Amino acid sequence: MIDIQQATEIVLSRVRSFGTEQLPLAECSGRVLRQDIRADRDFPPYTQVRMDGIAIQWAAYEAGQRAFPVEGTQAAGSPQQRLQNPEACLEVMTGAVLPEGTDTVIRYEDVDIRDGQAQLLPEAKVKARQNAHLQGLDRQEGSLIVKAGAVLSPAEIGVAATVGLPTLSVAKMPSAVIVSTGDELVEVHEQPAPHQIRSSNSYTIQMALARWGVKADRLHIDDELEATKRELGRCIEQYDIILLSGGVSKGKFDYVPEALEALGVQKHFHKVKQRPGKPFWFGDVEGKCTVFALPGNPVSSFMCTQRYVHPWLRQCLGLSPMPYARAVLTEDFHFRADLTYFLQVKTRYDEQTGQLLARPVEGKGSGDLANLVDADAFLELPRGKEAFAKGEVFPLLFYR
Amino acid sequence: MIDIQQATEIVLSRVRSFGTEQLPLAECSGRVLRQDIRADRDFPPYTQVRMDGIAIQWAAYEAGQRAFPVEGTQAAGSPQQRLQNPEACLEVMTGAVLPEGTDTVIRYEDVDIRDGQAQLLPEAKVKARQNAHLQGLDRQEGSLIVKAGAVLSPAEIGVAATVGLPTLSVAKMPSAVIVSTGDELVEVHEQPAPHQIRSSNSYTIQMALARWGVKADRLHIDDELEATKRELGRCIEQYDIILLSGGVSKGKFDYVPEALEALGVQKHFHKVKQRPGKPFWFGDVEGKCTVFALPGNPVSSFMCTQRYVHPWLRQCLGLSPMPYARAVLTEDFHFRADLTYFLQVKTRYDEQTGQLLARPVEGKGSGDLANLVDADAFLELPRGKEAFAKGEVFPLLFYR
Repeated sequence: MIDIQQATEIVLSRVRSFGTEQLPLAECSGRVLRQDIRADRDFPPYTQVRMDGIAIQWAAYEAGQRAFPVEGTQAAGSPQQRLQNPEACLEVMTGAVLPEGTDTVIRYEDVDIRDGQAQLLPEAKVKARQNAHLQGLDRQEGSLIVKAGAVLSPAEIGVAATVGLPTLSVAKMPSAVIVSTGDELVEVHEQPAPHQIRSSNSYTIQMALARWGVKADRLHIDDELEATKRELGRCIEQYDIILLSGGVSKGKFDYVPEALEALGVQKHFHKVKQRPGKPFWFGDVEGKCTVFALPGNPVSSFMCTQRYVHPWLRQCLGLSPMPYARAVLTEDFHFRADLTYFLQVKTRYDEQTGQLLARPVEGKGSGDLANLVDADAFLELPRGKEAFAKGEVFPLLFYR
Repeated sequence: MIDIQQATEIVLSRVRSFGTEQLPLAECSGRVLRQDIRADRDFPPYTQVRMDGIAIQWAAYEAGQRAFPVEGTQAAGSPQQRLQNPEACLEVMTGAVLPEGTDTVIRYEDVDIRDGQAQLLPEAKVKARQNAHLQGLDRQEGSLIVKAGAVLSPAEIGVAATVGLPTLSVAKMPSAVIVSTGDELVEVHEQPAPHQIRSSNSYTIQMALARWGVKADRLHIDDELEATKRELGRCIEQYDIILLSGGVSKGKFDYVPEALEALGVQKHFHKVKQRPGKPFWFGDVEGKCTVFALPGNPVSSFMCTQRYVHPWLRQCLGLSPMPYARAVLTEDFHFRADLTYFLQVKTRYDEQTGQLLARPVEGKGSGDLANLVDADAFLELPRGKEAFAKGEVFPLLFYR
């Protein structure tokens, strides 16, 4: 049995690319960029008026002038005008090109315009070149603004629009299927017999993947070796990832490892020193299909999805490892087994210190799906330690 | 001019409901639940085997018995069996019903099964009722598991599946339109003239809304009073929310406030003591359409969307105010104007203390869209203070 560090290393060493696709801007949110975004022009592309008011030549103001005849109006979206008389002014609108022959903008609040004359108010404070945003000040033409590999948030998509990219080259997401096993399972719309329960893991995992941008199908396979082989064989051909839930323990009808090995899926490990999630099985058909065979308990399969599948997906997409949050345990906690313990916690920020606090919400074990509703994260308590003290800081896995 | 607390109070006092809809489970992620989810049966619904192995009667073990004839196998998904001979055992599989007449499960790792006889290994440790998860231990039939008003994450959706709800009643999301104004703007696929720039705010805002579950249309209106009135009039009839970007300053062609007032939109405020985002205008047609008229600068409109539109939306959906993150300023910072300053920062967790650290990434002002790419949050520096010291903790608005 390996520990979580080894399991993590192995999972992250088995990464693959799923290719690249070109998508319209409005569909790119959350995707990983596969091209650089450069400034096609200076940012801003012209010296830009940043206040509504009048544009003057600073030299005139410096020489003591406080009243300026108005020559006209420079609207936003109009070609650049030119100040004819260096002692006059032009009215200018936010977003407009600063008129030629002017360098300073005085806002309307500081002037009184009457009969074609703009008179500065006595209290007006004017600084040279104020309210004029110089061409190229933010970024210069050709400069790199968003590097290939970035995750596209609203800000990056705004930048892409600005530089004239209606579509972007982004990393393709893997195709995925979530396979539930276990003859005790019935579908959500069915009435279970007294010895049956409804399938829920496949929904939980499907929704978790959806948040990471992976659309996954759902499939149920009965506890029968031939059916398991046949259906998994089809999945290997059809999908980039298979996530199984259940069928990996020591049970007589746990056919998953046997079927996977018969189908040529290379096993990289089976069982990890962790609770929940000990029976976790991981393997792949190199370059073709990656298989996460997770334990059937709802908390186990959910935790493994967050702790292993998500980092693997990020690595496949070329993203740096997830910045691990860290949180302060708010109560003493004991855990004796020689396993890494993923403690369910409810978090909040401390108002004084800005620290993230994690309060244990332990639940009744790995089958207690309902407890996940009351918590919002797993606190990762290291193996080889029994007592975890109030005030100690541990890595945290948010799942909301 | 009001301050950000007043602005927030006013915005949050103008909330509305957008109704309720019934959605299939797979479409419910991120939505707000409008019904209670109760346990339709006990959790678990039967006393459940939690390890693959043999089920025995504890009394037999206690009396010293260490070998048990195997009567048969209780598979998961099969009706409950009954142990005939109280000194025998049944093989049992994880997820199965615990057989009648048994109360304790010994895992396969601790027994040697040969010729129909299960012999306990000498080192096996057995506790009464181990590995049997009692019916109703996690939750009892009829108990409330997820309250109306909760945000549906993968965990809640798993619970809904378990209790047999293939669809859920959830809060309807508002219909929205993002309106850009400003004659200097051209579309993303167009080549701007030297005095023009491409429209980007409407994309940035559209993507931000999409993350909160709001699908928004985009529309551009020219700087012309009649067109502005006509188009905004149509939007008021058609949408629950209008987000405008630009047209709210003091410019000659800033027709937005005038057009909105002419259309019967009640103004609740215009201008807030904040940077960026001072010219922010807010109003509504009660119970029909809410209008956020944001300044045209990209950083301003983005910040206001995060700081006002998102909390308003949460309040409309009946969610509690967003738990504000708090972060530690990592450098001394000065800001003189009597305005709340939303400082762009890049955050990371301190490994030792678990504190969230915020490093200023200031940029070149509210027009510097590219700077948003380098930062990941706004640190809210209060008004009425000029010096902000390294080590002080302030509220933080994440935007990624």
